[in-house]
Amino acid sequence: MAKRRVGAVIYPGWEMLDTFGPLEMYSVLGAEEVEICVIAEQPGPVPAALGSDGPLAPRVYADYGFSDSPALDIVVLPGGSGTFPALESAAMLDFLRTAAETAEVVTSVCTGSALLAKAGLLDGLRATTNKQFFAMARMQSDQVEWVEEARWVDAGKFVTSSGVSAGMDMTLAVIARLWGQDLAEQAADYAEYSWHRDADSDPFYKDLDKGSRQLGLV
Amino acid sequence: MAKRRVGAVIYPGWEMLDTFGPLEMYSVLGAEEVEICVIAEQPGPVPAALGSDGPLAPRVYADYGFSDSPALDIVVLPGGSGTFPALESAAMLDFLRTAAETAEVVTSVCTGSALLAKAGLLDGLRATTNKQFFAMARMQSDQVEWVEEARWVDAGKFVTSSGVSAGMDMTLAVIARLWGQDLAEQAADYAEYSWHRDADSDPFYKDLDKGSRQLGLV
Repeated sequence: MAKRRVGAVIYPGWEMLDTFGPLEMYSVLGAEEVEICVIAEQPGPVPAALGSDGPLAPRVYADYGFSDSPALDIVVLPGGSGTFPALESAAMLDFLRTAAETAEVVTSVCTGSALLAKAGLLDGLRATTNKQFFAMARMQSDQVEWVEEARWVDAGKFVTSSGVSAGMDMTLAVIARLWGQDLAEQAADYAEYSWHRDADSDPFYKDLDKGSRQLGLV
Repeated sequence: MAKRRVGAVIYPGWEMLDTFGPLEMYSVLGAEEVEICVIAEQPGPVPAALGSDGPLAPRVYADYGFSDSPALDIVVLPGGSGTFPALESAAMLDFLRTAAETAEVVTSVCTGSALLAKAGLLDGLRATTNKQFFAMARMQSDQVEWVEEARWVDAGKFVTSSGVSAGMDMTLAVIARLWGQDLAEQAADYAEYSWHRDADSDPFYKDLDKGSRQLGLV
């Protein structure tokens, strides 16, 4: 297998750890195994979310726009407070459909699965999302088998995780599937990360829709 | 207390999670509590490390250069494979000394503490660093009380953590100190992060200087 191209697909108000937790775990595999790039609607700096206060925080530099992105082997799709406006972006939903056609694995973290669901990519599949804002994903499609209690859900091509930090646990599981368990264990050790290995054990199920209630979504 | 300015000080080959783990935890506090910015020697895009293969991965956009950085209340200093060349940068070491003068707290993750040690800022203090590359920090100063087994070490103004993921645990402890335990617990829950609360318990002490031996440092 040649090295894989990992692409993070971001938008204004992307959540920082949703994006860089997974990218960290892939980065540890080194340049022989992965190439990492960042894609946004337009190339250039894209601001992250400052909590629920929208796109104010550090800016990551998108290497490619949607129109000139190379094919991606692994897609990393973060959530964040910017997911709300991104759900209304036809360009984003179209790009996700196109990227998914040729990708080996499409992964989402947090509310990123709301975007996949809105794009119709999760219909008929099991999936999960951020615990505190579960309703936001559920509202995008009733054809998805939404799993409330899961750290992440592996549905084959599409792998969706719970909120923020769960993306790292999911990514190590994806690395174990694609590169083998030994390399996943080495990656976790290198990052001094205590890997939560059980996809079904979800310590944050306790907060289900806590944020959705504050937003009046449920 | 007015809101605090959190500044990540980066350089080519910065480790992604070292930087964005801590920034994520601060970001969750929201725009009323924090402003987050990124500083590098020059403003503009600065590439992250791809494992041990140097600066190849995504680029974060530095908002300020060393010469026009505003005063920082909290410094976030990552490690990464770029730490080696950064240790030779007088501009970096000078900036760290200047920033530390006015900062409330200076935090480092991973090999970031090697830079603080080289700048002379940790002399006479307890500190820790990345476990697999411990020798790299120790070589910078014998006036530091290096603590081999610690997830992080709080020496007051200077708080240093072990490798990569440990930065998140340290940051939540800093948030608890500056903003209170409740807000730190809320931040961990929001990020669905299982906070490792015990600074003295270090699951990765087992790998002490594993990487240093591979590099021939010990």
